[in-house]
Amino acid sequence: MGYTYRVSDAVVRRLPMYYRQLRELESRGVARISSRELGEQMNLTASQIRQDINCFGGFGQQGYGYRVSELRSHIAHILGLNEEYHVIIIGAGNIGRAVANYEGFAQEGFRVRAIFDANPMLVGVDVHGLPVQSIERLGDWMSSHKVDIAVIAVPAKNAQEIADMVMRSGIKAIWNFAPIELHLQKGCVCNNVHLSDSLHILTYRMNEDALFEEIDRARQEQRQIERGLGMMDV
Amino acid sequence: MGYTYRVSDAVVRRLPMYYRQLRELESRGVARISSRELGEQMNLTASQIRQDINCFGGFGQQGYGYRVSELRSHIAHILGLNEEYHVIIIGAGNIGRAVANYEGFAQEGFRVRAIFDANPMLVGVDVHGLPVQSIERLGDWMSSHKVDIAVIAVPAKNAQEIADMVMRSGIKAIWNFAPIELHLQKGCVCNNVHLSDSLHILTYRMNEDALFEEIDRARQEQRQIERGLGMMDV
Repeated sequence: MGYTYRVSDAVVRRLPMYYRQLRELESRGVARISSRELGEQMNLTASQIRQDINCFGGFGQQGYGYRVSELRSHIAHILGLNEEYHVIIIGAGNIGRAVANYEGFAQEGFRVRAIFDANPMLVGVDVHGLPVQSIERLGDWMSSHKVDIAVIAVPAKNAQEIADMVMRSGIKAIWNFAPIELHLQKGCVCNNVHLSDSLHILTYRMNEDALFEEIDRARQEQRQIERGLGMMDV
Repeated sequence: MGYTYRVSDAVVRRLPMYYRQLRELESRGVARISSRELGEQMNLTASQIRQDINCFGGFGQQGYGYRVSELRSHIAHILGLNEEYHVIIIGAGNIGRAVANYEGFAQEGFRVRAIFDANPMLVGVDVHGLPVQSIERLGDWMSSHKVDIAVIAVPAKNAQEIADMVMRSGIKAIWNFAPIELHLQKGCVCNNVHLSDSLHILTYRMNEDALFEEIDRARQEQRQIERGLGMMDV
């Protein structure tokens, strides 16, 4: 299929939400759920849920609802969560450490194999049981270890250079925390966690009502001016 | 306007990207940019950019492009970034600390005023110049301080309880890092950073080609079976 995406971004973004919700239901011992109930819990319509799931070849809902654990495992398979992933982290600052120490990581099959930083002061420091290595060792290290995912947790100004470096070493997946859009080589996928973007969306939502009151007022004034000018034309 | 959103999520999600790109252009001394050029840099079409900007009452592009710094400041205004925000962080684990120490925070007007944790071992520990306070002090503290944004960086199982607590104290905005969807009181907005969701989208993208080869194969087999059954009917 090459590198064109087969399913819309909106659907893909919902997949991890299904996975979370189903895992939650499973942990509460819920065996079956209808698309209607699942929809109510997730603020989606039943038909949206059925459509989303059908994007991936369908999954029988036989009138009496989905089997929770089967659907959870089906979605885990879609998300590629039945694999083991070897992960390296570049950047041992707060974000890099938070990722290294991220609880769910290990139990979901993500194995942090190494962590690198450019700051000599951090080299040798223990992060989640691993000594931080000098960024200068990155190329060598990668040539002798299997790595599936590179986490980029360096400042924006260094991120592309690091991305180029890991892609040259054959990395096919980047989890990027630097606040830039990386230029990717063909065959490499990337997902971003842009903290400041998320925060800015929050401040937008906080101010949305006031903003549109202002915009509506300006539009109204504009209309009055235009009407006034129209009258003068007469 | 109440609490119905005025602009689609997709547009809102692009606003911080415009802001980032324009800030980058401004820092490189670029004074003007056409919607075509901006689009090329951001992987969007020129008309999409013009439409997005028009959602907010329009912003003249007079044939010769946008003035970069004016458009940047217009978008900053839309995003509510010309205000000062008082922030508290609940949870002094890795994520809470990463947020407290997040570089751009202060220069964008976000002031971290207090950080709380339920773990007595962490109380008194210095995080970004602030002593971690006991979660038991949260209610009292909020009743005597102005707080605009509560960052929730606690485990999933405690997140709703904390959210309810801060909403009772009048919080109108939550930046949530716990991997759940919070139930919000009317008038409170929330944006989530779901790290595991982001990681799962990455693993989905890593496995998408193989997944659809498998789905296509299954569909083909299904069709062959149906055709076989059809022939037997004849």
